[in-house]
Amino acid sequence: MFDDTTPMIERVRAVLPQIAANASKAEEMRQVPQENIDLLKGTGLHRAFQPKDYGGLEMAVPDFENCIALIATACGSTAWAFSLLAEHAHQIALYSKQMQEEIWGDDPDTVVSSSIAPYGKSQEVEGGIRFSGEFGWSSGCDHGQWAILGFLRDDAEMGKVYSFAIVPRADYEIKDTWYTAGMRGTGSKTIVVKDAFVPEHRIESVPALMTLTSAGGDLYPDSTTYHVPFIYVFASCFSAVSLGVAERMIQLYIERTQNRVRAYTGAKVGQSIPACMRLAESTHQVAAGRAFLEKTWEDMRDHAERRVFPDETKMAFWRTNQAYAVKMFVAAVDRLFEASGGSSWFDDAEGQRLFRDAHMTAAHAYTDYDICAQILGRALMGLEPDPSLF
Amino acid sequence: MFDDTTPMIERVRAVLPQIAANASKAEEMRQVPQENIDLLKGTGLHRAFQPKDYGGLEMAVPDFENCIALIATACGSTAWAFSLLAEHAHQIALYSKQMQEEIWGDDPDTVVSSSIAPYGKSQEVEGGIRFSGEFGWSSGCDHGQWAILGFLRDDAEMGKVYSFAIVPRADYEIKDTWYTAGMRGTGSKTIVVKDAFVPEHRIESVPALMTLTSAGGDLYPDSTTYHVPFIYVFASCFSAVSLGVAERMIQLYIERTQNRVRAYTGAKVGQSIPACMRLAESTHQVAAGRAFLEKTWEDMRDHAERRVFPDETKMAFWRTNQAYAVKMFVAAVDRLFEASGGSSWFDDAEGQRLFRDAHMTAAHAYTDYDICAQILGRALMGLEPDPSLF
Amino acid sequence: MFDDTTPMIERVRAVLPQIAANASKAEEMRQVPQENIDLLKGTGLHRAFQPKDYGGLEMAVPDFENCIALIATACGSTAWAFSLLAEHAHQIALYSKQMQEEIWGDDPDTVVSSSIAPYGKSQEVEGGIRFSGEFGWSSGCDHGQWAILGFLRDDAEMGKVYSFAIVPRADYEIKDTWYTAGMRGTGSKTIVVKDAFVPEHRIESVPALMTLTSAGGDLYPDSTTYHVPFIYVFASCFSAVSLGVAERMIQLYIERTQNRVRAYTGAKVGQSIPACMRLAESTHQVAAGRAFLEKTWEDMRDHAERRVFPDETKMAFWRTNQAYAVKMFVAAVDRLFEASGGSSWFDDAEGQRLFRDAHMTAAHAYTDYDICAQILGRALMGLEPDPSLF
Amino acid sequence: MFDDTTPMIERVRAVLPQIAANASKAEEMRQVPQENIDLLKGTGLHRAFQPKDYGGLEMAVPDFENCIALIATACGSTAWAFSLLAEHAHQIALYSKQMQEEIWGDDPDTVVSSSIAPYGKSQEVEGGIRFSGEFGWSSGCDHGQWAILGFLRDDAEMGKVYSFAIVPRADYEIKDTWYTAGMRGTGSKTIVVKDAFVPEHRIESVPALMTLTSAGGDLYPDSTTYHVPFIYVFASCFSAVSLGVAERMIQLYIERTQNRVRAYTGAKVGQSIPACMRLAESTHQVAAGRAFLEKTWEDMRDHAERRVFPDETKMAFWRTNQAYAVKMFVAAVDRLFEASGGSSWFDDAEGQRLFRDAHMTAAHAYTDYDICAQILGRALMGLEPDPSLF
Repeated sequence: MFDDTTPMIERVRAVLPQIAANASKAEEMRQVPQENIDLLKGTGLHRAFQPKDYGGLEMAVPDFENCIALIATACGSTAWAFSLLAEHAHQIALYSKQMQEEIWGDDPDTVVSSSIAPYGKSQEVEGGIRFSGEFGWSSGCDHGQWAILGFLRDDAEMGKVYSFAIVPRADYEIKDTWYTAGMRGTGSKTIVVKDAFVPEHRIESVPALMTLTSAGGDLYPDSTTYHVPFIYVFASCFSAVSLGVAERMIQLYIERTQNRVRAYTGAKVGQSIPACMRLAESTHQVAAGRAFLEKTWEDMRDHAERRVFPDETKMAFWRTNQAYAVKMFVAAVDRLFEASGGSSWFDDAEGQRLFRDAHMTAAHAYTDYDICAQILGRALMGLEPDPSLF
Repeated sequence: MFDDTTPMIERVRAVLPQIAANASKAEEMRQVPQENIDLLKGTGLHRAFQPKDYGGLEMAVPDFENCIALIATACGSTAWAFSLLAEHAHQIALYSKQMQEEIWGDDPDTVVSSSIAPYGKSQEVEGGIRFSGEFGWSSGCDHGQWAILGFLRDDAEMGKVYSFAIVPRADYEIKDTWYTAGMRGTGSKTIVVKDAFVPEHRIESVPALMTLTSAGGDLYPDSTTYHVPFIYVFASCFSAVSLGVAERMIQLYIERTQNRVRAYTGAKVGQSIPACMRLAESTHQVAAGRAFLEKTWEDMRDHAERRVFPDETKMAFWRTNQAYAVKMFVAAVDRLFEASGGSSWFDDAEGQRLFRDAHMTAAHAYTDYDICAQILGRALMGLEPDPSLF
Repeated sequence: MFDDTTPMIERVRAVLPQIAANASKAEEMRQVPQENIDLLKGTGLHRAFQPKDYGGLEMAVPDFENCIALIATACGSTAWAFSLLAEHAHQIALYSKQMQEEIWGDDPDTVVSSSIAPYGKSQEVEGGIRFSGEFGWSSGCDHGQWAILGFLRDDAEMGKVYSFAIVPRADYEIKDTWYTAGMRGTGSKTIVVKDAFVPEHRIESVPALMTLTSAGGDLYPDSTTYHVPFIYVFASCFSAVSLGVAERMIQLYIERTQNRVRAYTGAKVGQSIPACMRLAESTHQVAAGRAFLEKTWEDMRDHAERRVFPDETKMAFWRTNQAYAVKMFVAAVDRLFEASGGSSWFDDAEGQRLFRDAHMTAAHAYTDYDICAQILGRALMGLEPDPSLF
Repeated sequence: MFDDTTPMIERVRAVLPQIAANASKAEEMRQVPQENIDLLKGTGLHRAFQPKDYGGLEMAVPDFENCIALIATACGSTAWAFSLLAEHAHQIALYSKQMQEEIWGDDPDTVVSSSIAPYGKSQEVEGGIRFSGEFGWSSGCDHGQWAILGFLRDDAEMGKVYSFAIVPRADYEIKDTWYTAGMRGTGSKTIVVKDAFVPEHRIESVPALMTLTSAGGDLYPDSTTYHVPFIYVFASCFSAVSLGVAERMIQLYIERTQNRVRAYTGAKVGQSIPACMRLAESTHQVAAGRAFLEKTWEDMRDHAERRVFPDETKMAFWRTNQAYAVKMFVAAVDRLFEASGGSSWFDDAEGQRLFRDAHMTAAHAYTDYDICAQILGRALMGLEPDPSLF
């Protein structure tokens, strides 16, 4: 068990050196090394959103995301996968008590991966559904014992309803498909389910989860954690990773540039005015992005503590602020990396990994700024939401 | 006197409609209309940094700047000039008791304008200096009874020392030179001093003012207000104005775009996706810039309350964060204005005024981002400060 | 008459100093000074697109636009208004012989202004239409003897057809409405027509003019000038003006920055690295934009000389390349102006005029990049044209 | 031998499919596949700058670079390495006849790689120098029979003079060090020379090569090819590669986006307005960058044909225009790639390779825009050249 007399952020900081040392290994393995998972489980962070009934922490969003950003300074892939494994507890806490018992009853350290795009095929049967599908990009799936999987469920009244089924490890295979140019270490492989039976208590609709009207929506009335709709907690993870990667790039740029000389002239790059100005502008940009995220996360904490459900405009901001911040972080990383010289492109140079990872934090469907700008813009302009934008 | 049972922000909000209605008049007069000054004095905001001994408020930075940003949504020029008139009390409070008595003893509502670039010529004489010079750009000078004026004073030991003399209205003339394309209403005219005698108690060096070692540096030991070096409070004003202008541009863009049709086709602009996306991106950008400023301002409050003098790096951030935020605001305004159509360019359209004013918030020596990026970049890269960058 | 032994570009260059000297006067008068018109008529450039039958030059697009860009280095407003007055000859040359005789028969130096958004109201009568309307933004109208005015004509078969009526000076009044923050000197006032009779030979539809199937479409079979659809020549004018304004800004920035010192420190701005880098980047940007325009213009010349009608994709590029170039020019101007200091904002400083004028070159319906990006993007993506984008 | 009845551009186009098919193989091998070299030698393009005396083509710059850009649409790495292998003939043609005979006398198809940063150590001996060093990043070295290597030669009068020694394959080893995140297929490995003797006829100073005053500077008085200083031809290669990569990205984006659906909603991306606008803006940007390069290249051709040596300002533009164009291309690629979805990040997706390769075209010392902006900015501002900027 973790030592909870030390603040979480300090426990995370203590394991950073080992996680950083494993960064290349994570890329080579194309998944998070078991050692990293063990180290982070040792901090207890995987239980951030687990109900206290199971020994969880019921953390607030800003406290959690700050830890994720910190992990990302050491290894973006580890932060990405681990943040999602941990975040899924927020959704599980809204499922039936039976579901939660199955997952955490015996082993409260269990974590769960997901693949939530609605790629599953379901057939209604007595007591549940028959379920099949190939679900890509399930980050950290090698370390999960269950998987949350998306599908459109047929509902007599409402037509297709976006829903999640939670499936145990025995009911799916993992296909090793994760060969990518960025975030290689997330192990975001493909989950294959072939005609599994999923009983009703393991299924919830997204609207019910969002509004705390799911089977377990009222299980923890004293907790404030679950009053932020889960999707905004989920969406916050990518920007926290992006923030950490960008903050590490700033530090790396200083370290390398201070000692760098130009090949043709021997000129000291660290004393060049353009190098200093790039550093300043990226530092300002990342600091501004961080301030924006922190304010957004604190707003979530505030709503949760006051048990106020966010209004439409608020949700549009929560859905999209994170993507704008990611845009800022990617621009900041680019500004520094593009002035880091050819030597930064070698496989053993940290810079090129940060560059690739940073760009990939902007490549998730949730950080797609074209989508986000339309969502927020329509809300502010007073237009109806466009259902094709999610 | 103002009604101090209402929070300041509410008192300011109450006078906004009149100030907004005077915005064109301010441009025509090329100075802040007296009515605006009277209205704002009615709120008491001009006494934000005045010592409580004179009935002042000794406000914290964020509380003050939030009011300035709000005023700027109605009239950028008024916010600019008034913020400086009010801010100067922070410096006066660090002068000798005699100086403060002269200014506020009879009329504690007195405000003071300034022109701080070191353009004055001084000659040491018995008990003070003979002082001359033309000092440009003294915002709000028509409404001030004194002027704080910069010069390089000859010091036997230290050579030229950057100093401020405070000169009474009787000792200077105002030349009406303020014919500009932006911030026309600030009335930032030229102050002309011809061989005036300035006694010693009206002179302080900038280093002494910065470090609270001036004649009045320890007059108010219980106050936290003066523990933020005045220059950062001064510098914060421009970005607060810029923020307000940008926030107003967002609102204006929504109002106008919702009803706008394209001349050639009759197409409704408010339903166009690019129009919505511009709105979203500028809204995100201004919100992120605001969060960045708020965090910086709160940091000033925190230092002041803890009576901690900022370290070098902290000062580099306080000096420069505001300029980065202004850059964000100008970009946000441009993105909206450039999609506002030709009709927004007419003299009676608010948009073109916001556009001109926004750009001018970035044209002050303190918001020059080339300078700021060098200051911060050098600090972060571990280089010595460059004295040519101020 | 002009001396046609000197190349046009040299004749234009010779009158630039006087036009530059009149730039402030043009702003004050809010129209092009008569002297400028006289000087430019003295070069013969107003006859660039007039048929040789009337003593016109039947110039190629690049030769004309290069002259316009050159004029814009002296006075953007003059270049804007004059380019349109001259360009309209291209459309007139496609009207009936009778129309051309009426305009140029007695005075071949006659020029014509326009307002082409379809704001006119028409009623079909024997031999033509009754015509009324208020038509805004008719650049240079004080100097024109006729006006080309847009309306949607009722056509029995085709419904509303976008058409132009040409109306003589006696049939309209000019309302002095041109009070704007940019391009003040264009005199783009409002033309008011009250129930005028327009005979058939003074009316053409836009589709007919575009495809040379209008009444005069085959009058000059040996000319290559008219084989570029007029709308692309029209659209080219704004970018040529924008180019000239940007090129002047570069020159002005060099002149001023070489001698500029910073108010607070006396540091020489002309030796600062950021100042040099801004100069370089804007110079590259304007040079690249110019190369892009020149290549586009040469493509028009090539099509005209080969008498090849452009295909759909080609037209999408001709319609939109100019707007992208304008975007580049505005960015280049901003980069320099924002580093020109507060002194550049005074009414008598050329920089602020260039800044305002540059931005306004991007505010015309034809340089709206949101529209242009959609037009070209749809064409390249293989989507149908969207008629709401024109 | 190649069929010189077909224009070069057509011969290159004919081999593109095979080169494109080998693109992944080039990345895996981390060098240009022999088949690609053979195919391109079959076109004769490697002899672009070889003197006609050896059967060379003595091409003009634009004709050559257009071919390189075309190759880069199929494989950036191949274009990069091959362009340099071919370009080196331009320098060899300025060496002594003896040197040229040694290289081309027996096998006129011989190509030569280089590493020109001055990393060599030399000791003056009878008839030449003893020469050692490790020279990184020698693109295409596996396919070269000689290597051009940089060093600072001791000169009695002039001190250190930047010079190139040409060393035969027998005198150096190749260390397989090329493990990078971009342009993996260029095989830019390390050349190791240990105490080799280099006779005088294989050595030239860079100033002599630049000014055609080297041993072979007047060997081909009738040729126009060599009148462009070689360094601008060298520098042009990177931008030509960058152009080709960007043009391919545009095509790829169209192909993929037309068929792409969003994972969460099934929405068709190819019909989305933001997707179309990104396509348009990047297409405009690449087209403008191409126009800028073409104009610069034609200017080189023009100078060469007129045998005019470029003045200082002209050289500053030739040195730097290419880097600005590369900046444009990278921005264009980013705009498209960042909207290409997570699936574009997989190792077998062409997009992520184009993204990595594009960024690396901006990472060469010659495309470093911070350096280039200073070079051009200083020249335009009238400052002395800074020798630390090369």
